[in-house]
Amino acid sequence: MGDVVALLQLDPTVGDISGNVRLIEAAARLAAEAGATLAITSELVVSGYPPRDLLLDAGFVEACAEAAFGIDAALPMIVGTPLPPAADRHRPANGAVRVVPGRRSKVATRKQLLPTYDVFDEGRYFEGDSSPGILRLSERLSVGVTICEDAWQHAGLVPSDYEADPIEQLAAWGHEGEALALSINLSSSPFHLHKEGSRADVVRAAARTLQHPFLLCNQVGGNDDLLFDGRSVAAWPDGRVVQASAWQQGILLVDLLDPHDCSFQPLTSDGLPGGPPEQVPLVQPDETPGPARSDADLLAAVSVGLRDYCRKSGIGQIVLGMSGGIDSAVAAAVSCRALGAANVLGLSLPSRHSSDHSIDDAAATAAALGMRLDSIPIHDLHTAADSALAHELADGNPVAAENLQARLRGMLLMGVANARGAMAVATGNKSELAMGYCTLYGDMCGGYAPLGDLYKTEVYGLAEALNAEAATLGNPSPITESTMTKPPSGELAPGQMDEDLLPPYEVLDAILVARIERGLGAAAIEKATGAEVDTIAWVLARLGANEHKRWQMPPAPRVSVRAFGQGWRQPLAARK
Amino acid sequence: MGDVVALLQLDPTVGDISGNVRLIEAAARLAAEAGATLAITSELVVSGYPPRDLLLDAGFVEACAEAAFGIDAALPMIVGTPLPPAADRHRPANGAVRVVPGRRSKVATRKQLLPTYDVFDEGRYFEGDSSPGILRLSERLSVGVTICEDAWQHAGLVPSDYEADPIEQLAAWGHEGEALALSINLSSSPFHLHKEGSRADVVRAAARTLQHPFLLCNQVGGNDDLLFDGRSVAAWPDGRVVQASAWQQGILLVDLLDPHDCSFQPLTSDGLPGGPPEQVPLVQPDETPGPARSDADLLAAVSVGLRDYCRKSGIGQIVLGMSGGIDSAVAAAVSCRALGAANVLGLSLPSRHSSDHSIDDAAATAAALGMRLDSIPIHDLHTAADSALAHELADGNPVAAENLQARLRGMLLMGVANARGAMAVATGNKSELAMGYCTLYGDMCGGYAPLGDLYKTEVYGLAEALNAEAATLGNPSPITESTMTKPPSGELAPGQMDEDLLPPYEVLDAILVARIERGLGAAAIEKATGAEVDTIAWVLARLGANEHKRWQMPPAPRVSVRAFGQGWRQPLAARK
Repeated sequence: MGDVVALLQLDPTVGDISGNVRLIEAAARLAAEAGATLAITSELVVSGYPPRDLLLDAGFVEACAEAAFGIDAALPMIVGTPLPPAADRHRPANGAVRVVPGRRSKVATRKQLLPTYDVFDEGRYFEGDSSPGILRLSERLSVGVTICEDAWQHAGLVPSDYEADPIEQLAAWGHEGEALALSINLSSSPFHLHKEGSRADVVRAAARTLQHPFLLCNQVGGNDDLLFDGRSVAAWPDGRVVQASAWQQGILLVDLLDPHDCSFQPLTSDGLPGGPPEQVPLVQPDETPGPARSDADLLAAVSVGLRDYCRKSGIGQIVLGMSGGIDSAVAAAVSCRALGAANVLGLSLPSRHSSDHSIDDAAATAAALGMRLDSIPIHDLHTAADSALAHELADGNPVAAENLQARLRGMLLMGVANARGAMAVATGNKSELAMGYCTLYGDMCGGYAPLGDLYKTEVYGLAEALNAEAATLGNPSPITESTMTKPPSGELAPGQMDEDLLPPYEVLDAILVARIERGLGAAAIEKATGAEVDTIAWVLARLGANEHKRWQMPPAPRVSVRAFGQGWRQPLAARK
Repeated sequence: MGDVVALLQLDPTVGDISGNVRLIEAAARLAAEAGATLAITSELVVSGYPPRDLLLDAGFVEACAEAAFGIDAALPMIVGTPLPPAADRHRPANGAVRVVPGRRSKVATRKQLLPTYDVFDEGRYFEGDSSPGILRLSERLSVGVTICEDAWQHAGLVPSDYEADPIEQLAAWGHEGEALALSINLSSSPFHLHKEGSRADVVRAAARTLQHPFLLCNQVGGNDDLLFDGRSVAAWPDGRVVQASAWQQGILLVDLLDPHDCSFQPLTSDGLPGGPPEQVPLVQPDETPGPARSDADLLAAVSVGLRDYCRKSGIGQIVLGMSGGIDSAVAAAVSCRALGAANVLGLSLPSRHSSDHSIDDAAATAAALGMRLDSIPIHDLHTAADSALAHELADGNPVAAENLQARLRGMLLMGVANARGAMAVATGNKSELAMGYCTLYGDMCGGYAPLGDLYKTEVYGLAEALNAEAATLGNPSPITESTMTKPPSGELAPGQMDEDLLPPYEVLDAILVARIERGLGAAAIEKATGAEVDTIAWVLARLGANEHKRWQMPPAPRVSVRAFGQGWRQPLAARK
């Protein structure tokens, strides 16, 4: 073999076996044409990651394996796929197969370490293996093959210790017999902010221990609520690193002998060349690869998540409510980035409590984005609903009357979406969802919540990134000055402001991040944030009391760094 | 020790450590007074089962263990509780502690086999142990201690093999050294129809292998969507069995030497005596213990599930829509059984498509149950909504207009619930949910769906059980003849009948059971049900296309027997 290895950074669709194989074959042909002599895919690329309960269907697993073995390969490849159980009454394996032109395909390795924490549930679906992943490719060449988590134990970046360290196994093999020329890792490593730093740590630690190049191929794109940023990465033993582009399909061509000469070939969604190859900069041992601006990275993340959710679910149009507030303005802009402004319809749904500036701000955002905005005033419906529920509202909890407006809007939004065969998008953010400051069956309506894993303060960051992007392109700002600066308001009662109920968002978000992402208790939160004890207690109590709303949230792209295992979902009965 | 062992069949609340300990202590005092010399609890009784993400909080696990060690025991006890990790960077254990008056408490055992399939996720939260559960209680007495799944491998009733068989470990210990006098199993074994037969197989297999009595103490009651029927059970080596009552707290007093002399002491929710002790019949080796009527068992199951959900969540009142159809009539009756008729409010929400007999049937059901029924006609709201959406509805998908009515009703139901601080109950069943024959944010609104895991044909069975129960008590039938016999209709369009769209429910349910509960593919479904190939294909396609609705369903008590691992939830992206 030569010295160029291709990492096929692809965006497979969960469950679409034949479509995924077509994509793999197309990318492999381009890799071969570009001079690569070995191609690597991401983890479970044949099924797409995460296949979840599809893995419980033995027929599905067999179909994946068969498709992987039958790949029409233009060059030697190592391809990630589910594999049938090794024995009766066992679970399938998370594996990789070697496919070489003119030779019989064979199993290359089976994943050893099965993450079962946070967004991962692999212990539920797979059986772990215990054999080191040594693959002989030719007389002269053996390669170490690992799958995702297998490489993370070595860097210490797993929440609890596994009993095995597959990187050490490869090192032991190298010491004992024939040295390996390189080792690889097939990954489906989900995005969260700043994850590229952890991945660089993983590949550097492995390359240093193994004393040869270590190459990690990652999935890219969105599948349901999981986002994958791509950023496939290779490291040399001295700590130098090259990293592929984020948020797009492509091929990272890694020249093992000349790290300076690595390039990235972008691909269209069909696996065709999407522009000229780009030179990839070499990251020095003391540098961390990563995006220049994290708000721009988040903007790309949520846009790709929504785009892929729609594309993979056959959704061509989005409808969303536009209140003139920051959340719906940013959600509208993200929707336009995902599907194009022509496929996004905004609805202004003013009530007797809506201010003029809200209506104007929504119109200005729609105009700047070039999208259509229709208006359906809810006044008559609101009056009819008030009258139908007059007895109940008279001396009932006042929240009932506020929710009524949100639910009327939800009903109209869904009516328009159903009539047009479009998907309604929920515009809420994580701060208000955590506090239950949103209406079940009202503003929570929708098939997807693009901002649902972003704190309110992060939504402002996205707004700035959107305006900066528009300025660069010479376009008007999608998020108006007034939207950016006015105090947030639900406008469900006269003069109602978010801060009448909630702490200021800077304070609230700091507490929520400490609790949800870092798993801290009250005392530690006080220390970390400096917030008032009473405020912290109020937020934590309200967080517990509103778990039922989080259970009902539409899928939201996962962007936050969470403490290991600090899941977003908690049992309802624990509210007590 | 004497020869009477008490199985404390309790209904703990997930997360309520101190309340659970009070309950355990109260029951233990009664057990000691009744002459027991050893008491056993169910699995994880201190935290309640399933504690789920609470286990990710190290402070919670420590608090459970501390509470368990500190139990004020009236007699020697073995108590199930989470235990802190044995080492840094490990997960907690699912354990049991020995508590003996006047002696230091100590760890009795740690669970070895961690189910991670179907409703279980223990591999996510716990670390498995590998030591046999041998507990020396006194100079003369050692007991074999196992926790739930530990005993199921031996009977072959697990979906895939584990590497260890804890029952064989106990048998080996008995052969090698000091013989054990008895072995026990702390269980939180969730209910599904006919599960008592499997449990009898498990305890019989263990008792036969071990050649001494084998006692299984099970949790009872509902925690979120998991139901536990109790039915704690003991087996002797010759295959005779005694089984505790279902669906109620109590103490099963097992006389090890005289199986004929076992009794069940019912307990109130506070752990006080709830009536005189009941003699427990001895089940012969060739008999299967179980309820006389499975529809009555299902009725008890869903009633206890709703009752406990409300009690444990602090919900005192239920509101539900009553259409005159079978689902809402049965849901109303179940609500009255759960909270009492005085705490249930029915809403008749007639539209222009509602028939007179529907309104009359709802009124007759409410009268028979002694519950209040208010009427809020939706006509004016419907007109206002039609007019607001006139342009969209004119040439849009007609489903939009049908959904509008369901969503107006959902809004009114939630308005009444919010105004009163009550919980709305969704009345839908599993057949319509599977087919998407229900409206998101419409009739799916509610905090709990008591019939959500029952097929339509099972709902009719519940109706018959309800009427039979009423007849026994000399009460009028809650489900009218007309409700039982009229063809099901959504009444969302003129003359609309369920069978205009769906296959007859007998056919539909047979296909759904074959697919969802047994995991069969199309060919096997045809063989098992004899249904038309086209019908099967239509149902399977529609089942796949409506997964998003199942994701949004309110919690429903789990009553169906599912194929191992055939979860109800599937990935959205797999719709393609």
